[in-house]
Amino acid sequence: MGDKKKKTAEPDLMQKIVGLCKRRGFVFQSSEIYGGLKSAYDYGPLGVELKRNVMAEWWRSMVHEREDVVGLDASIIMSPKVWQASGHVGGFSDPLVDCKVCKCRFRADKAPQVEVGTEVTFRAGGKTQTGIAERGYVCPECGSPELSEEREFNLLFKTNLGPVDTGDSTVYLRPETAQAMFVNFLNVQSTYRLRPPFGIAQQGKSFRNEITVEHFIFRSCEFEQMEMEYFCPPEEAPKWLDYWKQERFDWYVNLGCKKENLRLRAHEEDELAHYADGCYDVEYKYPWGWDELEGIANRTNYDLKKHQEASGKKLTYFDPVRENPETGKMGVHYLPYVIEPAAGATRTVLMFLLDAYDEEPPSEGRKEGRVVLRLHPRLAPIKVAVLPLVKKDEWLTGKAREIVKAFLKNGVNAFYDEKDAIGRRYARQDEAGTPFCITVDGQTKEDGTVTIRYRDDMRQDRIKLEEAVDIVNKKMRE
Amino acid sequence: MGDKKKKTAEPDLMQKIVGLCKRRGFVFQSSEIYGGLKSAYDYGPLGVELKRNVMAEWWRSMVHEREDVVGLDASIIMSPKVWQASGHVGGFSDPLVDCKVCKCRFRADKAPQVEVGTEVTFRAGGKTQTGIAERGYVCPECGSPELSEEREFNLLFKTNLGPVDTGDSTVYLRPETAQAMFVNFLNVQSTYRLRPPFGIAQQGKSFRNEITVEHFIFRSCEFEQMEMEYFCPPEEAPKWLDYWKQERFDWYVNLGCKKENLRLRAHEEDELAHYADGCYDVEYKYPWGWDELEGIANRTNYDLKKHQEASGKKLTYFDPVRENPETGKMGVHYLPYVIEPAAGATRTVLMFLLDAYDEEPPSEGRKEGRVVLRLHPRLAPIKVAVLPLVKKDEWLTGKAREIVKAFLKNGVNAFYDEKDAIGRRYARQDEAGTPFCITVDGQTKEDGTVTIRYRDDMRQDRIKLEEAVDIVNKKMRE
Repeated sequence: MGDKKKKTAEPDLMQKIVGLCKRRGFVFQSSEIYGGLKSAYDYGPLGVELKRNVMAEWWRSMVHEREDVVGLDASIIMSPKVWQASGHVGGFSDPLVDCKVCKCRFRADKAPQVEVGTEVTFRAGGKTQTGIAERGYVCPECGSPELSEEREFNLLFKTNLGPVDTGDSTVYLRPETAQAMFVNFLNVQSTYRLRPPFGIAQQGKSFRNEITVEHFIFRSCEFEQMEMEYFCPPEEAPKWLDYWKQERFDWYVNLGCKKENLRLRAHEEDELAHYADGCYDVEYKYPWGWDELEGIANRTNYDLKKHQEASGKKLTYFDPVRENPETGKMGVHYLPYVIEPAAGATRTVLMFLLDAYDEEPPSEGRKEGRVVLRLHPRLAPIKVAVLPLVKKDEWLTGKAREIVKAFLKNGVNAFYDEKDAIGRRYARQDEAGTPFCITVDGQTKEDGTVTIRYRDDMRQDRIKLEEAVDIVNKKMRE
Repeated sequence: MGDKKKKTAEPDLMQKIVGLCKRRGFVFQSSEIYGGLKSAYDYGPLGVELKRNVMAEWWRSMVHEREDVVGLDASIIMSPKVWQASGHVGGFSDPLVDCKVCKCRFRADKAPQVEVGTEVTFRAGGKTQTGIAERGYVCPECGSPELSEEREFNLLFKTNLGPVDTGDSTVYLRPETAQAMFVNFLNVQSTYRLRPPFGIAQQGKSFRNEITVEHFIFRSCEFEQMEMEYFCPPEEAPKWLDYWKQERFDWYVNLGCKKENLRLRAHEEDELAHYADGCYDVEYKYPWGWDELEGIANRTNYDLKKHQEASGKKLTYFDPVRENPETGKMGVHYLPYVIEPAAGATRTVLMFLLDAYDEEPPSEGRKEGRVVLRLHPRLAPIKVAVLPLVKKDEWLTGKAREIVKAFLKNGVNAFYDEKDAIGRRYARQDEAGTPFCITVDGQTKEDGTVTIRYRDDMRQDRIKLEEAVDIVNKKMRE
């Protein structure tokens, strides 16, 4: 029932975000001219910049700024043996059921629950009918208890490498980036001569053939991940789980996410994945309620052990200064434990859009209200818009373009806009989340100053032209 | 025969590059512990940084630095109707043949040619045999003319979205990023209110089920593209083709590629794709000869026309200040022509590795020779390595780490290394392509200076510590 409501009527804020995304070119439905594709989305000019910025911030803080973490970029199609060993080929499935009345297909584990044996009423063919709930749940669409058998539906996308007829050519699209870090563990460790604790980080697309896709880009079949596997001595795993849950929570806060909309939630014993010894979710208060943003799990040595067994290759790390418990001497081979902070990049983009969205009513000084995306300057697609006050004045447009070039040379994404009145241009930039606007006007000719306008409070200062880059750069680093 | 030689014995330089890539963590074979997967590669800690830098440079010059180009990031799985309309489902195939003698499978269009009806000799079962060439080509492995029929093998990877049994669930992995720009043409144009000429740029993975994969990461089934579609009035297409072929050529040169290893080659009439009205290849002198790096084609309005027909949606742009040839009045709807510079990111990574690779013999001052990657500083995975001369001196290591932090804060990827003697550390950085090393030593304590060592000529200067960031930053922008 909850599910049904979400599908037909997303909460108000979600509708506004979806509308803004389409109108301003953040996110379009994929293949829209062909009627769209279920749960696939394209990031437009603003969206691609926002997503790139989110992912670049993650890479900066998780890889570049740390001595103990290195990067990886593995292929999406890996050997099928990887997914057999990881358990994805055998077990990565959802229980699927068809409703015999309305033909809707749904996940049994997400359907509305009722007590077995109770009489339920539902609508079929325009009439109210009754039936006995034999299964403990009913159809989420029409409420009927007349259902097909449950069958397991594997979430892996299957394809073939090479011609189909060459024996076993089945391969899978990766459902997570994580396994590549396990499979490459020794390659990376040895080329970089790393000692646990150390991490391997990866960003990239993953694919899950989800039956239930929902909430715009929150859950889709093709999505982008930001995952890091942190390999450590087994006894240190609880300490690092604590450490990473806090690091990751702080990352969102440092990028401007409102603290009251974020929480850390420990998984209950019965929620834990079979391989996990402790897990936290960073949850966000979405318009539909608290829901997952990122999971930080202690995966133990489960994955390395599975791959060691399946490949027949030793995946242990040799630590010369660790005591061998069996011999009492120094030097021991062991499988590290792994702490995994696993975030969804596309989901994080949605979260930042929701969190940054604000509407201001008209006020004393302004006839019109405004929509403003209060994105952190480091996340904003455009950092600074440079606006000549008058389009027809070639000195102004030339000077404005010069300023744009100066920003770009300093690695700051600047945008030139001369269309429409200055108020409308400001409004467009507010909606795009641009934190700074620089306006070039008549006075610029006289004294070399420009106006800088701040998105959040609409304050305007007169500054020297040559200070512009420094001022914006400084704000970006705050 | 040429093909065969390449497979069994890549030229010397290629072997060195493959070895360096594995040894230093640029590129690993995918799923190596499981025996690897045909033609799939994983980018290790250094490789992922190099690839990111190549792609970031492309994005900077193609999107950020231009007023007339915006970005896009579309889904890999698009509506199958896109690939029907584009002709990929029907026609995107290779002629495939099996050799009846050695069982090798190969592409007919790449096989060694012989005249039909001539007698050829080949080896089978250890004996020399003869046969008549009936097909105009022979097996590239054993030279036999005893071949199966040709059959068309489609290069699209097929998969299913949703359960397989729900009617037509077949979808494809995109074989190129380009089609997303055509399909999103009007969405992007209208949200950004763009007027031709303007471009839409995209980077990302594409997939082609290639039979012949070769030369390491040069041609693989999963690869990464950097494509831009530049929409312009039809009569301007020749001008923009000229413009973009030169822009793209210069891009490689500006990033340090040796000019003598690059050339622009116009396609012959019979080489042109059926949709193209003019095409240039940027070619590089690989160890196996001149071969493609990037194609710049005039795709005319072929793609927009096809999608307009197939979707039934008007994809014309309305230009209010263009004369309608039918009425003679201002204002006309038309389908823009498209100039497409299409580069391979993975291929470009290989090219830069090859081009930057250098071996220096021992010289008067140095007992040992060295391997050095002369990558452009903007491409180098690590920009600066900071090395405390002595690992046991905590003041030195603390100061070195401080310097690393100062670089990172300024967006410069710095790396801390205290392992081994300083000479070996320099050698490691040379091989990784790191343009600058900064060494902190006893004198640093006394006068606040450090040594900066330049990769290319091994020159060492003594500089003030606080100048280090500025000096490196300046060199990066040269």
